[in-house]
Amino acid sequence: MNDDLPLRFREATLADLPQLVALLANDALGKQREQLAHPLPPAYIRAFHQIDRDPQHELMLALLEDQIVGTFQLSFLPYLTYQGGLRAQIEAVRVHPAHRGSGIGRQMIHWAIERAKARGAHLIQLTTDKQRPAAIRFYESLGFRPTHEGMKLHVQSIESP
Amino acid sequence: MNDDLPLRFREATLADLPQLVALLANDALGKQREQLAHPLPPAYIRAFHQIDRDPQHELMLALLEDQIVGTFQLSFLPYLTYQGGLRAQIEAVRVHPAHRGSGIGRQMIHWAIERAKARGAHLIQLTTDKQRPAAIRFYESLGFRPTHEGMKLHVQSIESP
Repeated sequence: MNDDLPLRFREATLADLPQLVALLANDALGKQREQLAHPLPPAYIRAFHQIDRDPQHELMLALLEDQIVGTFQLSFLPYLTYQGGLRAQIEAVRVHPAHRGSGIGRQMIHWAIERAKARGAHLIQLTTDKQRPAAIRFYESLGFRPTHEGMKLHVQSIESP
Repeated sequence: MNDDLPLRFREATLADLPQLVALLANDALGKQREQLAHPLPPAYIRAFHQIDRDPQHELMLALLEDQIVGTFQLSFLPYLTYQGGLRAQIEAVRVHPAHRGSGIGRQMIHWAIERAKARGAHLIQLTTDKQRPAAIRFYESLGFRPTHEGMKLHVQSIESP
């Protein structure tokens, strides 16, 4: 039985940015970190262009009837380790709150896995905040294993939203 | 009291690659993953050039009297999250077994932190295998916090060494 929603995937454009930042901010952790102002703070626009012009980064949107219902960034990182193997890294995964529980996240990660394979990555990696236990179970259900500690050091504080 | 060894840091060149791969392979986990052959398998050379030509990756060596005693890769990743903040990511950290316990790892990570700040990163991140508890304590002693699960999905097996 296939009851997947008919999602479409495409890379984000500059015109999507306000909606995209709103989606990132619409989240328990995200709302402490983002600055959802009109016009958008220029740092978002700068970051968008850095991501957009670099073919190693794909800033993806999931659309349902032309509405943005999810996003993630897929990055391709070359390393010497694992015999010079390319890694894919998933970050900034969000599903619109109105559409959670409908399998959109699962379809997004499936898409990312297939894309990573197509680009020749041997390993797909991500880190997820230990404050998000449901996310950890979700990734485990997709085959990811929590073999590593994800360690972070903040060296510069961001402006409070 | 400063009893730091007089290390020098520089980016790796193609000529360093055989020694560098030997260093990556000289490790309990690394020896299961790397192919230390002469000549080197071409995948290492391909990966080296991918890293070398991309200014977002710095493949670093720590040298003591012109001997390679350590290595790490520092990568700079643009994201929309955290108000468009740049992240630095540390990977493939190794210290030569003959020089472990002499503070070289600490000097390498200090160097990486200063470099990440100089390039404007707000956050430095890494994942470390849960099979390396001493490494986890080491990074904690440098201020890193294990706030995240580091999740991996292998989608392609590498050739056995």
